[in-house]
Amino acid sequence: MRNLTLLTDFYELTMMQAYHHAEIATGRKQEAVFDMFYRENPCGNGYAVVAGLAQVVNYINELEFNDDDISYLRSTGVFGEEFLSYLKKFKFTGSINAVPEGTVVFPGEPLVQVIAPLVEAQLIESAVLNIINHQSLIATKAARVCWAAKGDRVLEFGLRRAQGPDAGLFGARAAMIGGCFGTSNVLAGQLFDIPISGTHAHSWIMSFDSELEAFRYYANLYPNACILLVDTYDTLKSGVPNAIKVFSEMREKGIKLVKYGIRLDSGDLAYLSKQARKMLDEAGFGDAGISASNDLDEYIITELKTQGAEISLWGVGTHLITSKENPAFGGVFKLVALCSGGEWQNKMKLSEDPIKITNPGIKKIFRIYDVASGKMKADLIALADEEYTNDTDLTIFDPLATWKQMKLKAGEYIVRELLRPVFEKGECVYTSLTVPEICEYAARERATLWDEHKRLVRPHLMPVDLSKKLYDLKQDMIARIREESL
Amino acid sequence: MRNLTLLTDFYELTMMQAYHHAEIATGRKQEAVFDMFYRENPCGNGYAVVAGLAQVVNYINELEFNDDDISYLRSTGVFGEEFLSYLKKFKFTGSINAVPEGTVVFPGEPLVQVIAPLVEAQLIESAVLNIINHQSLIATKAARVCWAAKGDRVLEFGLRRAQGPDAGLFGARAAMIGGCFGTSNVLAGQLFDIPISGTHAHSWIMSFDSELEAFRYYANLYPNACILLVDTYDTLKSGVPNAIKVFSEMREKGIKLVKYGIRLDSGDLAYLSKQARKMLDEAGFGDAGISASNDLDEYIITELKTQGAEISLWGVGTHLITSKENPAFGGVFKLVALCSGGEWQNKMKLSEDPIKITNPGIKKIFRIYDVASGKMKADLIALADEEYTNDTDLTIFDPLATWKQMKLKAGEYIVRELLRPVFEKGECVYTSLTVPEICEYAARERATLWDEHKRLVRPHLMPVDLSKKLYDLKQDMIARIREESL
Repeated sequence: MRNLTLLTDFYELTMMQAYHHAEIATGRKQEAVFDMFYRENPCGNGYAVVAGLAQVVNYINELEFNDDDISYLRSTGVFGEEFLSYLKKFKFTGSINAVPEGTVVFPGEPLVQVIAPLVEAQLIESAVLNIINHQSLIATKAARVCWAAKGDRVLEFGLRRAQGPDAGLFGARAAMIGGCFGTSNVLAGQLFDIPISGTHAHSWIMSFDSELEAFRYYANLYPNACILLVDTYDTLKSGVPNAIKVFSEMREKGIKLVKYGIRLDSGDLAYLSKQARKMLDEAGFGDAGISASNDLDEYIITELKTQGAEISLWGVGTHLITSKENPAFGGVFKLVALCSGGEWQNKMKLSEDPIKITNPGIKKIFRIYDVASGKMKADLIALADEEYTNDTDLTIFDPLATWKQMKLKAGEYIVRELLRPVFEKGECVYTSLTVPEICEYAARERATLWDEHKRLVRPHLMPVDLSKKLYDLKQDMIARIREESL
Repeated sequence: MRNLTLLTDFYELTMMQAYHHAEIATGRKQEAVFDMFYRENPCGNGYAVVAGLAQVVNYINELEFNDDDISYLRSTGVFGEEFLSYLKKFKFTGSINAVPEGTVVFPGEPLVQVIAPLVEAQLIESAVLNIINHQSLIATKAARVCWAAKGDRVLEFGLRRAQGPDAGLFGARAAMIGGCFGTSNVLAGQLFDIPISGTHAHSWIMSFDSELEAFRYYANLYPNACILLVDTYDTLKSGVPNAIKVFSEMREKGIKLVKYGIRLDSGDLAYLSKQARKMLDEAGFGDAGISASNDLDEYIITELKTQGAEISLWGVGTHLITSKENPAFGGVFKLVALCSGGEWQNKMKLSEDPIKITNPGIKKIFRIYDVASGKMKADLIALADEEYTNDTDLTIFDPLATWKQMKLKAGEYIVRELLRPVFEKGECVYTSLTVPEICEYAARERATLWDEHKRLVRPHLMPVDLSKKLYDLKQDMIARIREESL
């Protein structure tokens, strides 16, 4: 593992020194609460899939300013020796609550809640955002692509187009959490125990004098995973006939064909797959699979399926690993409460734009399910001292259009809290699930959404309401801040 | 440094085993030449800036299948012991030529040329593409943003929105090569010796009871780098007046204000910067800088400058670090020649689409400059055994529209070869420049382009021609392949 302690924005360090300076000057330690949340689902999706927590935990566990780091910071001329010796002994002593990886989440909800000395919370802002933003982006994009594939297997193939090694590695991890079946990325397979997949490239075919020879050699060596790439010269005139020839030879030799078929990587995938399907069927290879790749995304997969494409396995690269349509998640890290000298004060940032006004205070997220269907009905963001159970009738309301109300009858709904303790006063109290376990959990999570919420374009939006108490606090604070500043 | 040996697509390993198997069966070692090139400039730009070579060199120097890697590969059930013991002793023994980082490059040119045993060249495809694609993308995007800023300083601020830690770190490096003045990323500053920058966030202001108090505290602590963020409450009614108050207090105390000013991070940046400029000037702070951030890219910077925005320093985040408009570079790695049993054969992939037809053979790139202006005139891709100097008249022509010809008179042009040796038979023979040195070189490179080539939208395209010899070879091969496959 690399030391990522300096993976932070410079202003975090200048602020830290200033906070540290103020603490020494006043003798008062400040505690802060920061929420990491996002404002808009990527790609117009109806929800997001949160991911990256395991890497955040590693990052925080390994925070340490080593001698090189201290020397480097000294060399900038900005930091005093007092602060540098503080950094030398730096250890994260705060608490963190977070929504587990794979959970379906919505805009405005605190995904990571940091309760820590202000000076410590400030340091971790950049890396926490970097990691959660990236992996949640790719997990959400993967959920879209897999939804479009309607139960067909989707493989993540994007390493070569990912934005650097980490983007390939952790992008593959996130893609699995979003619903992919496997990846081409061997390192991701090794580190995260996820299925890896792949057979050969055009260069394999081109390195032989003929396509037939190339297929034959490959089939002899890998009879149990024999997916032949058929588009190097001419898919229907050369590739598919040669593949059929080789499959026939294998059958004649008495080799039982198990996992076999063809891959299309160019041309019109609807037309070619239907023609290839017919040719394979007529030759008695009805169980041969047809996989496809070539600049796929959720939209083209939807269109291809609508046109009856005979494709059962989708290799998705660039669009998935970069979330090409929308390559940034936009999570932010905002101060919501501050404690100076033992007294907590709620904090809030005003903005002209209602969506940019933050929710003040230390909060919880309650997820409300319909008992009869098991489907999710709404999320309720409340203050930390509130409790909701299912034994009373409950009315919740939209915080921007308060006349939009939902009445919940006792016994007909159940409630689950989303935030879980991850660090308690500097001690890690969270054991990450393995990636296969997270994938299982994430699939169950997505199953609690109605299809209407999963629609790729203009989905039905899940209500994310504020508790009455939080709503009132927010309104009071808005009124007070506006009064003070005018 | 992490072991990235398994950062490869699974099919590279299955092909490698197959090549290895064939070598043992036939007793013939195959040598191959692969070109890494790209087909289209990102974001409609007129050129690209290549970057990432230093990381490719590290990656290749550190290739090693350790015991864990071997065990993992064994566990997949796909690889035989013979091949696994080959991997255990694996060392890259090939040669690599590459275009130096920071060079201006064009579609179709080999940026990295790998001449190696086929089995070795295949392994490195995925990581070479991943690294060069990512860094060239961000360097090119940065060149666009810096071009829009017309000499103003541009800072890279995108760590929190980058696609994982590497994307933040190497993205910052690439942004510098593309022309940025500095970064907020401290780790990038430490590892690559590049200027780091940043002051404070909204949370700093919010942690005080008043904005004025927050500014005052900061100014006292950092009088030499006092850029105050003025938009937490109300930019013109509160932020700028409070900043002026604090600057006045500093002046009264006799503190010489050197690097000071304000930062705008929301609202209409044209209007606010002009108003703020007026207020600062009237208060006698004509030399106070105004910096701006908030979802900037090359287009909005151009518009803001057109409208007379009084901004002299631009902090660019999401759009730069993800190349949001176009987040993938699209470089490919194609087999262009193969040697079996001592005889070289040129290789080429046909496609319906002329732009997807590869250039066969081992090649060189000659860059042609006009002596009088020092500006670049064209690139000429030629075969490796060709030589071009400036002592004869030369006519070059467009390979798709051969009637488009350019006549060059002896003495009026000069020629420079772009590809440099990086590895020779497994030995690294390349010393990477430092990042500041690469930045200097890259700036000189961009200065050889006319402004018409740098236009952000529909730029004038640089001719990239093929030598007569390469052109003829390509035409012959197309004819032959078409004949054979029909």
